[in-house]
Amino acid sequence: MREVSIGIAGFGIVGGGVLSILRSHAREIEARTGARIVVRRVAVRDPAKERVVDVDRELLTTRFRDLVEDPRISVVVELVGGTTEARDLVLEALRAGKHVVTANKALLAFHGEEIFRLAQQKGVDVYYEAAVCGGVPVIRTLREALASDRIQALLGIVNGTTNYILTEVAEKGEPLPVALREAQRLGYAEADPTLDVSGGDAAQKLCLLAQLAFGARLRPEDVLTEGILDLLPEDFAWAKEFGYVVKLLAVARRCGPAGQAGGNLIEARVHPALIPAGSMLAGVRGAMNAVLLQSEALGPSMLFGQGAGAMPTGSAVVSDIIDLSRNVLSGSPGRVPLPPSEPLVRLQPHDEIRTSYYLRFTVKDLPGVLGRIAQTLATRSISIAAVQQREHQEEGAAVSLVIVTHRAREADLREAIRTIDASDAVVAPTRLIRIEAV
Amino acid sequence: MREVSIGIAGFGIVGGGVLSILRSHAREIEARTGARIVVRRVAVRDPAKERVVDVDRELLTTRFRDLVEDPRISVVVELVGGTTEARDLVLEALRAGKHVVTANKALLAFHGEEIFRLAQQKGVDVYYEAAVCGGVPVIRTLREALASDRIQALLGIVNGTTNYILTEVAEKGEPLPVALREAQRLGYAEADPTLDVSGGDAAQKLCLLAQLAFGARLRPEDVLTEGILDLLPEDFAWAKEFGYVVKLLAVARRCGPAGQAGGNLIEARVHPALIPAGSMLAGVRGAMNAVLLQSEALGPSMLFGQGAGAMPTGSAVVSDIIDLSRNVLSGSPGRVPLPPSEPLVRLQPHDEIRTSYYLRFTVKDLPGVLGRIAQTLATRSISIAAVQQREHQEEGAAVSLVIVTHRAREADLREAIRTIDASDAVVAPTRLIRIEAV
Repeated sequence: MREVSIGIAGFGIVGGGVLSILRSHAREIEARTGARIVVRRVAVRDPAKERVVDVDRELLTTRFRDLVEDPRISVVVELVGGTTEARDLVLEALRAGKHVVTANKALLAFHGEEIFRLAQQKGVDVYYEAAVCGGVPVIRTLREALASDRIQALLGIVNGTTNYILTEVAEKGEPLPVALREAQRLGYAEADPTLDVSGGDAAQKLCLLAQLAFGARLRPEDVLTEGILDLLPEDFAWAKEFGYVVKLLAVARRCGPAGQAGGNLIEARVHPALIPAGSMLAGVRGAMNAVLLQSEALGPSMLFGQGAGAMPTGSAVVSDIIDLSRNVLSGSPGRVPLPPSEPLVRLQPHDEIRTSYYLRFTVKDLPGVLGRIAQTLATRSISIAAVQQREHQEEGAAVSLVIVTHRAREADLREAIRTIDASDAVVAPTRLIRIEAV
Repeated sequence: MREVSIGIAGFGIVGGGVLSILRSHAREIEARTGARIVVRRVAVRDPAKERVVDVDRELLTTRFRDLVEDPRISVVVELVGGTTEARDLVLEALRAGKHVVTANKALLAFHGEEIFRLAQQKGVDVYYEAAVCGGVPVIRTLREALASDRIQALLGIVNGTTNYILTEVAEKGEPLPVALREAQRLGYAEADPTLDVSGGDAAQKLCLLAQLAFGARLRPEDVLTEGILDLLPEDFAWAKEFGYVVKLLAVARRCGPAGQAGGNLIEARVHPALIPAGSMLAGVRGAMNAVLLQSEALGPSMLFGQGAGAMPTGSAVVSDIIDLSRNVLSGSPGRVPLPPSEPLVRLQPHDEIRTSYYLRFTVKDLPGVLGRIAQTLATRSISIAAVQQREHQEEGAAVSLVIVTHRAREADLREAIRTIDASDAVVAPTRLIRIEAV
């Protein structure tokens, strides 16, 4: 039987998953690859450390160079994390003519251009299925299955931590901080959950997805990004009343058809959104991930699965190893062209984003307030789709007034809210959640 | 720019979709393939016939041989349908050393062994993403993304016609024959809907899926197959009351873990099933398709999308053409090994299938009837999870008694029902629907 040799750098949770899958599924993998995959070296920081998955001490090294310089190794698997050491390792591996598998979304979101350019020069591949949505094969699907199609929009629940928290709040009525602490206790959220709850993690993933789906070249700071910490229990209750659920969505969408105005513009944003309660994305509960694609030929399609964890993420890494092994064995590196070096689309300014909005005003219960708010919206071309007001408890007390708008321009809406919030009748800043009719 | 030449045989609805996608997405396809895809010949029955999609008359031929014998053509796309002409064409194309793309599930379900064996001998590929679930990339996902994993179970809604009908019945309360006629009027069901409503179409697809997922070698007649025509409105109502929806499921599942008893046995079945109303599969409405996979490393994952139609199916065909073009260009045919020629698993006898059951007895409303039924079930080791009985209208009239069982062995259950139905207290054959906790 033929062999493909690999080296693994970093041996934490995902590394353990990778090694355990390579061992326990060896028979299936050999049948499907036509070769045996042999781990030649494993680079770790501390060789003396106890490992969950047993590894032959002979394979261990503390020097990344031992992987890069080993002539037998054709695929280097980067599981170090971060963007400094990992970047050095990946660039060195590529320079040495080795293929790279990485699960590191931050690395690719911030340094993808440099990495893909070098890979192209050296005629080797960089695969990264595990970098987005763990084991859900969204990278592969965009690269292969949808290569025939023209994608119009991509809407993803790509962060399991926040989806777990939002599901708990919606279903158990817990306040968000309580659900966050529970997520931390269960290991769904990290001790410092900032990257997840701020939407930053989702924005990094959206950069990778938008590159494959649209040929975009975005950096995380280009993405309009809002986190979940400002959501209040009342907004969940109102959402339910209007037939919606609250999800942290990552959205990238073409602004117009090809060849027409906006056809080469996309919008890119990560924020809490209201989506119809009966929709497929609304059914994505707990720490699960899903990506909904809308494309010209195929129409709507969705991929769903576990976005994190040693085994799901490990399985995505091993799929990439198998894919690269097939390329190595059949002598076809670069079989799937890398994303074009020039971006095919540009980012539309966030001011021009158009969605529907859920607006919750906290107003004094006085005659004429609704009329004045409606008037202010109307002067900014924002039309109202639905309105609801809670019965007031006592004369003159503050009440919630909820308005759902038709599609409106972000800048117009922001301006209208500024005007309204400056009025005497408004007693607290207006809450705003975008609505997506997925 | 490099070129890959293809020939298309059969130019109906899907053929039109293929040609129109190749044209309208030419720019995207060139970027993602690194080559131009050129249609050299199109074989049709009647060249004079009007086509929805315009095609250069120079390309048309009535002879399949013109595709097979054209030395420029490296990929033959079979869209003829049926299992006679299509089989001849595919075998001839393979003999001539051409790669084949087909959307023909029946051809592969009945003649797959012969076709794959010849492809292997000739060192060429047979791709068939469009044969199962139209544009949903389930074939590719099983072949590539899950190559690292060990699949335990596969549950699919793989027939859009029946899913449309079942959704209408459940949501509008229409009788099934009415929903079927409506499906025919809208083009979701054919004039002769037998293949769809009998479960036969789903069984053919299950054969292809089980081969990729488990290395099974099944023929459609091996699959336990029950259609939807016997379902009654009352059963939909009861299902709802118990928190279930009714779906026509295609199920293939390992009977035990690898290396243990049953580890190399699978069950394979297509039948109406009750699934929890809140599950992801239950959210698959109308003519949509979905496949839920349960695998060791990845856990649950699901693919969802349009299973039929010119453009979705056409997009799957074009994805295969692109994939094969990448192989042709990089000189890597046979990059993904064909399924092993010896089956890796065997079929468990249907008698040994174990599921939970929904049983609806129509009994005389007399004392002791429930007790006797429960007793008969108990003697066959069938235990009861829930029971419900409608209030009777008049003394001595027939009433519905619904029992949901725990997991039981199919043969035991059948025997118990035979005994119960022979009793004087039972006035109509007992209705049985299997339950899947997806």
